Amino acid sequence: MKVKVQLDIKGLIESGNFRTLKTVLQQQEPADILELIDELPPDEKIVVFRLLQKDQAALVFSELEYDDQIALINLFKEERLREIISSMDPDDRTELLEELPANVVNRLLSYLSPEDRELTLSILNFPENSAGRLVTPKCVELKPQMTANEALEKVRKEGPDKETVYTLMVIDETRKLLGTLELRDLIFSDPSKHVEEIMETEPVFVHATDDQEKAAEIMKKYDLIVLPVVDNEERLIGIITVDDIVDVIDEEATEDIQRMASMGTTYNSYFHVKPWHFFVKRLPWLVALLLIESVNGNVIARFEHILASLPVIAAFIPTMMDTGGNTGSQISALIIRGMALNEIKLKDWWKVLFKEMLIGLSIAAILGAILFFRSMLISSSLQICFAVSVALSVVVIFSNIVGALLPFAARIFKADPAVMAGPFLTTIVDVFGIIVYFLTVSWLLPA
Amino acid sequence: MKVKVQLDIKGLIESGNFRTLKTVLQQQEPADILELIDELPPDEKIVVFRLLQKDQAALVFSELEYDDQIALINLFKEERLREIISSMDPDDRTELLEELPANVVNRLLSYLSPEDRELTLSILNFPENSAGRLVTPKCVELKPQMTANEALEKVRKEGPDKETVYTLMVIDETRKLLGTLELRDLIFSDPSKHVEEIMETEPVFVHATDDQEKAAEIMKKYDLIVLPVVDNEERLIGIITVDDIVDVIDEEATEDIQRMASMGTTYNSYFHVKPWHFFVKRLPWLVALLLIESVNGNVIARFEHILASLPVIAAFIPTMMDTGGNTGSQISALIIRGMALNEIKLKDWWKVLFKEMLIGLSIAAILGAILFFRSMLISSSLQICFAVSVALSVVVIFSNIVGALLPFAARIFKADPAVMAGPFLTTIVDVFGIIVYFLTVSWLLPA
Repeated sequence: MKVKVQLDIKGLIESGNFRTLKTVLQQQEPADILELIDELPPDEKIVVFRLLQKDQAALVFSELEYDDQIALINLFKEERLREIISSMDPDDRTELLEELPANVVNRLLSYLSPEDRELTLSILNFPENSAGRLVTPKCVELKPQMTANEALEKVRKEGPDKETVYTLMVIDETRKLLGTLELRDLIFSDPSKHVEEIMETEPVFVHATDDQEKAAEIMKKYDLIVLPVVDNEERLIGIITVDDIVDVIDEEATEDIQRMASMGTTYNSYFHVKPWHFFVKRLPWLVALLLIESVNGNVIARFEHILASLPVIAAFIPTMMDTGGNTGSQISALIIRGMALNEIKLKDWWKVLFKEMLIGLSIAAILGAILFFRSMLISSSLQICFAVSVALSVVVIFSNIVGALLPFAARIFKADPAVMAGPFLTTIVDVFGIIVYFLTVSWLLPA
Repeated sequence: MKVKVQLDIKGLIESGNFRTLKTVLQQQEPADILELIDELPPDEKIVVFRLLQKDQAALVFSELEYDDQIALINLFKEERLREIISSMDPDDRTELLEELPANVVNRLLSYLSPEDRELTLSILNFPENSAGRLVTPKCVELKPQMTANEALEKVRKEGPDKETVYTLMVIDETRKLLGTLELRDLIFSDPSKHVEEIMETEPVFVHATDDQEKAAEIMKKYDLIVLPVVDNEERLIGIITVDDIVDVIDEEATEDIQRMASMGTTYNSYFHVKPWHFFVKRLPWLVALLLIESVNGNVIARFEHILASLPVIAAFIPTMMDTGGNTGSQISALIIRGMALNEIKLKDWWKVLFKEMLIGLSIAAILGAILFFRSMLISSSLQICFAVSVALSVVVIFSNIVGALLPFAARIFKADPAVMAGPFLTTIVDVFGIIVYFLTVSWLLPA
């Protein structure tokens, strides 16, 4: 029976009490070790790694952030690095290698057995973000003519080295995928039955070149914990396990949220990304938006005669911009998320348009009425109050429609709908909103 | 061997060809049936349900959107409804019941066996969004003194009725959770060994009253496919399976994205939410922001003397608002997502502040320089160009810091950091941005 204890890893390292540290570390789960060493500098992380068992070290190393992995690769003794790299799971190893500089990749590949090297290189050949990159070949493979008893024996024998034994792959001599067999069905089955009688003969699978997102969707749809991955001739390459898919789902949401905030995407956690890198991800968008937004200045300059005679009109520019942007942001977030979850499809645009006309009109009516009263605090002219409240209603209806339809436009041009949100959308809506505002006001108020 | 075919369900229903429909439907996976009937009106969905087997019907019904479930409950014959409700998995049943009106809940509960009714009521007692709401009691329970062989026999016997057999629960007479046993370890083990020798003696678990998010985090951290749920005395209540957690992860991301768009959260998909419901979720935020934003009008009115003498100053109000809002939105999205993934903690605020001072300064310098040149298109006074570009730099630095720190402020007040984004943040940043703008300009430009 274990109890929770506070452990001062830094203290143990500094006092050189490695024996205690070793004993304690070897009792921990990899995920817990990861947390324990998160804030140690790389040279102290190295000390911890020296004390871990080979497999434990490989698992912890796989889960480190990318920048820590690089730092450690440079600090490990060659012997230790060789051990860790060759004990890693194939899919984790690929993930590490795909971001490293070529010379480091070559060094690491030289540590692998010829078999593992070939395997790793073949996985690296699949496109980035493809299902193939998540593949592990460590699955149990059965033949259709085996009896349930023979199959179970094979699971017992090979299982301990495999990533999972809960879904077994049934293939023919050419490795073509014939079916999958749930371990539970194998256990419940009459031992003399043949695998082909109890297997699922229409297994769901993905191609290695399919997008990771597709793999995630299929696993969610059918509640799978293991998904077979095949090549173009439907020959089995390996499997994807649900824990990798959970990471994909998180990554996709992060990507969407970053795109919706109008910036380049970055997958590492905040403190593991260098300021320079964030600078590069954010600045181009801000510059582009600053240039698009220059239209506003020109529009306002054109209506300077109105501002000169009625300077109070300037006081409502922020109202139009903020409220228009807010309305557009709400609806675009709803549509973009709906598209990401496959609930809204391109062909649904007219249904969305219809629904948002209705919602936009209702919201516009109420916000317009509120502004009418609010504006009386600033202006005593009821005519002006009326003009700005009508303008706000028009801006709201307009922003709601633009926010609803821009994600569809992105889809048509094969772009990610997520960019049609936040700052980008707000800037577009503001440009049109200001034009609408001045047109409405100049139409309703004789200069 | 199945092949893909196009199936005109509507046509088959209208022509009364129920025999074909029945044969075809019974060969489909529940997830596929769901997709096939998605666009049928409720009265045609009912026809399809009549043709499904009991278990199939229960599975498909569980996965329907909430509004369809309600519609069908009112259309089902009592006999059929009784069948479907009592065949549903306990966790799916709870999810359905928690949103139904009390009189319907009572009717449905009356269809259950006394045992199932008690179980359902106890799950409904756990707070909304708690781990307890996801619990299914359908797991295999072992005693520590059983041999591996006896345990495997129990799995074979009870397994077919259980939600999963891949992680087995080991409990004592008082139902206290002693350990968990992976089916793979049971299969690999010497049949004469005792369960207590091969089980994991320090199982990770959650309490039923813990938040669903906590359950999701633990399952992600330890790559689990099954998580035990216990009561306050650590007695086993049941398990959570990874497919429910995948839904939780999606829901949490949806919730964050909606909050970041400053609106109330709603979990049903876009087309299954009534316009009125969206109206209610969106309007209060827009009204609140419209009222907060009224500060802008007053600030501008106070600086009307500057606008009167230099109307070109108004042309840069949108620049300050847009660029400030964009910068703040980017950084707040990064921080909020980092917090949601537990990568950024409350105590890290000063690290973020330091990093964002650096990034903000660099971005501000470049955007300021760009505006200096851009403004020469509108104004020929270098003094004005200089003043607005300095003002923009100050606004950017300021917005970047506010966007970075507001999520921390939310954390301190136990609010969801996600509300400190998008429209809400933009409105706050705009209010301060306009003040900063006019102060800077009036300081640099002698009126």
